[in-house]
Amino acid sequence: MQLTHYTDYGLRVLIFLSEQDATQRFTITEIADHFGIPRNHLVKVVHQLSTLKHVDATRGRNGGIRLGRHANEICVGNIIREMEATLDIVDCNKPGACPLLPECRLKGILNKASNAFLKTLDQYTIADLTSKARPC
Amino acid sequence: MQLTHYTDYGLRVLIFLSEQDATQRFTITEIADHFGIPRNHLVKVVHQLSTLKHVDATRGRNGGIRLGRHANEICVGNIIREMEATLDIVDCNKPGACPLLPECRLKGILNKASNAFLKTLDQYTIADLTSKARPC
Repeated sequence: MQLTHYTDYGLRVLIFLSEQDATQRFTITEIADHFGIPRNHLVKVVHQLSTLKHVDATRGRNGGIRLGRHANEICVGNIIREMEATLDIVDCNKPGACPLLPECRLKGILNKASNAFLKTLDQYTIADLTSKARPC
Repeated sequence: MQLTHYTDYGLRVLIFLSEQDATQRFTITEIADHFGIPRNHLVKVVHQLSTLKHVDATRGRNGGIRLGRHANEICVGNIIREMEATLDIVDCNKPGACPLLPECRLKGILNKASNAFLKTLDQYTIADLTSKARPC
């Protein structure tokens, strides 16, 4: 049970930016090189972070990205809700509709567990994840 | 964020068996056909469930599998701990060691969240997942 690389990379970009001077901008290539991730894996990630206003992106010669809001305003639980393709821990319709439906109560119980997972992460912001943070 | 198919199928096998007459045995082929899953996807799953004594397997003409213990003795949280390839929600060493290490606190916080997820599931057994169960 793992986060998708997409969400993982999104979190890494935000943590990286939160550790930099708030006014400094970085290109996607610079961040991709820093993490050893192919640039094209980060393009969509950064685009979504920009759409969500978690990063502020500008084009041009001195363009690049920086955090769009303070790191202590970016909730880790919300990032996962926003970026994960699905929060359904199992897919009861693959391969084909599961014959245990509709009586099976697994999905409802997994949803409860998933909510407990996200509720834990709602207690933390990107600012709590960095080396500058206080221990929790 | 999803369980692997391996764990998902393990849970389905256990739920299926818990809904049958406790003395009746089913072959892997019968269960695979019931769920529309290729038989070879279930072989390793059933082998592990047998090793863990969650199912009782016999060979031969009247062989097959049935639950190895009562459904109310099989904890859902433990099945996930036993069957998931990893409980690490992110892999900080892919691709290559993440440069945010060792100060980054994401992994520790995700582990807390993962524990909350499993703790929720520790409240339920396979018997709670079937149509015969009381609502929770």
